[in-house]
Amino acid sequence: MKTRILSGLIMLPLLIIVILNGWVLYAGCFVISIMAAYEFFRGFRHMDIKPCYPIALCSIAALYILGMLRRLAVTAGGAVQPCIAVFGSEQWILLWIFATVLACLLYLFSIEKRKPEDAMVTLTGIFYVGFFCYTIGELALSEMNIFVWLVIITAFGTDICAYFAGVTMGKHKLCPKISPKKTWEGAIGGVLGSVILSGVFGLFFAKAFLPYCLIIGFIASIASMFGDLTASIFKRKMGIKDYGNLIPGHGGILDRFDSVLFTGPVIYFYVAIVADAAFSEGCVTVF
Amino acid sequence: MKTRILSGLIMLPLLIIVILNGWVLYAGCFVISIMAAYEFFRGFRHMDIKPCYPIALCSIAALYILGMLRRLAVTAGGAVQPCIAVFGSEQWILLWIFATVLACLLYLFSIEKRKPEDAMVTLTGIFYVGFFCYTIGELALSEMNIFVWLVIITAFGTDICAYFAGVTMGKHKLCPKISPKKTWEGAIGGVLGSVILSGVFGLFFAKAFLPYCLIIGFIASIASMFGDLTASIFKRKMGIKDYGNLIPGHGGILDRFDSVLFTGPVIYFYVAIVADAAFSEGCVTVF
Repeated sequence: MKTRILSGLIMLPLLIIVILNGWVLYAGCFVISIMAAYEFFRGFRHMDIKPCYPIALCSIAALYILGMLRRLAVTAGGAVQPCIAVFGSEQWILLWIFATVLACLLYLFSIEKRKPEDAMVTLTGIFYVGFFCYTIGELALSEMNIFVWLVIITAFGTDICAYFAGVTMGKHKLCPKISPKKTWEGAIGGVLGSVILSGVFGLFFAKAFLPYCLIIGFIASIASMFGDLTASIFKRKMGIKDYGNLIPGHGGILDRFDSVLFTGPVIYFYVAIVADAAFSEGCVTVF
Repeated sequence: MKTRILSGLIMLPLLIIVILNGWVLYAGCFVISIMAAYEFFRGFRHMDIKPCYPIALCSIAALYILGMLRRLAVTAGGAVQPCIAVFGSEQWILLWIFATVLACLLYLFSIEKRKPEDAMVTLTGIFYVGFFCYTIGELALSEMNIFVWLVIITAFGTDICAYFAGVTMGKHKLCPKISPKKTWEGAIGGVLGSVILSGVFGLFFAKAFLPYCLIIGFIASIASMFGDLTASIFKRKMGIKDYGNLIPGHGGILDRFDSVLFTGPVIYFYVAIVADAAFSEGCVTVF
């Protein structure tokens, strides 16, 4: 419990970045992406798999730079220089995918030193850690960036509420093989807590979108637990307890952000695709 | 040599699909994608890695359906129903990436039965085989789809020319550890052959783009050899000679199309991004 609350406090600096939002948060997401990817790769060395960090670093950096150029191209519209306007095209994302996969495949060309697994972990790290985190940056640059708050609220809200619900009424194990301590009571408490907290947020900061906040609170809470369990699965397979020890006694970046990696994209896509049309008008009134 | 020529003849049905081009070729790319992914996954069973074919099948199908909807949204423009118009947005590609990676991660949740490698091979297969082949389909639907011919010409042109150059003057080994028979003389002969064949194609079918055809002939020829070697690396690691035996005596789909998987995206991106602006006018005169 002490750990839970302390690690909550350690999240305070993060809050400042989220308050500043926009480009600051975008940059923050990039830093978290490359740190988390490093921890993810390091974990696999316990399985004698040696992914290529430089490739991941270049690929993730390219993704963020590309996102920046795309954003500039879109916002600047016709007024912008052709050299930037061209980045408005979706083909650049396809090119990024191709270049990333190609780099990982070419990594295998020193055939005696490397196993296919080395390239595949590199690819998985780029997409799982780098790309998932990138969607939060995309959300931060969108006009709907107030919803970045829900990425944090649902992830940590679920975590903390599930913990308290679990210790007070936890009886039935959720998935003992992946995470022995988790219970169904905790999970239900986590979802309820997330919905309530998201509702409270909506009530005070985004009244126009209150129903959407409640839906997000529910969906993202479930995503949050899957994110948590996914990280646990990898750690079990790697035979490690924590991804790192960056925050003494609270593990590494990836241990703290495993849920955020899942709530981020889920909320980004919900806002960008499912609800964007419905929001776009109301949105203006909020800012 | 007999094999080379025979397998050339076996490519004839393929030519009909390429002649028809457009949606027929797009559908052809889908079929090749899912067949090649199947062979790729089957190969890994020799390494006791069990990727999930259903996930790959759904993901690749989703990619092609999405590409179709995007194309319809773009071509139909404002006149189209909103339900289709929404697919014009690039966020759908990001969503496809997310859904694909998520599905592969959730595959690990039956933690006792599965290894991280199972999920990672699934992901790699989807991107390496499925996505690379998809770019050829994208090219086939674009107004520049005459360049699909160069995907075939550079891939098989390089292969055949390199073979004859190799057997006649081959002396210096190219990369004995990956593919013992390949020589530098063969590689140079392959590039020259590809450039000449692409030039001849340009001369007769796309005069306006002749210089571009020569550049493509050169770049794609090198890509073609990397594609060939990449497939060889995987086969060596898997401990198999061929990916399959679909074409008796000529291996499987992936053995025939390993080079095309690389020339396809290289030509697609060259045409779509580097040369599109320069082409767009001349293009109209061609069709």
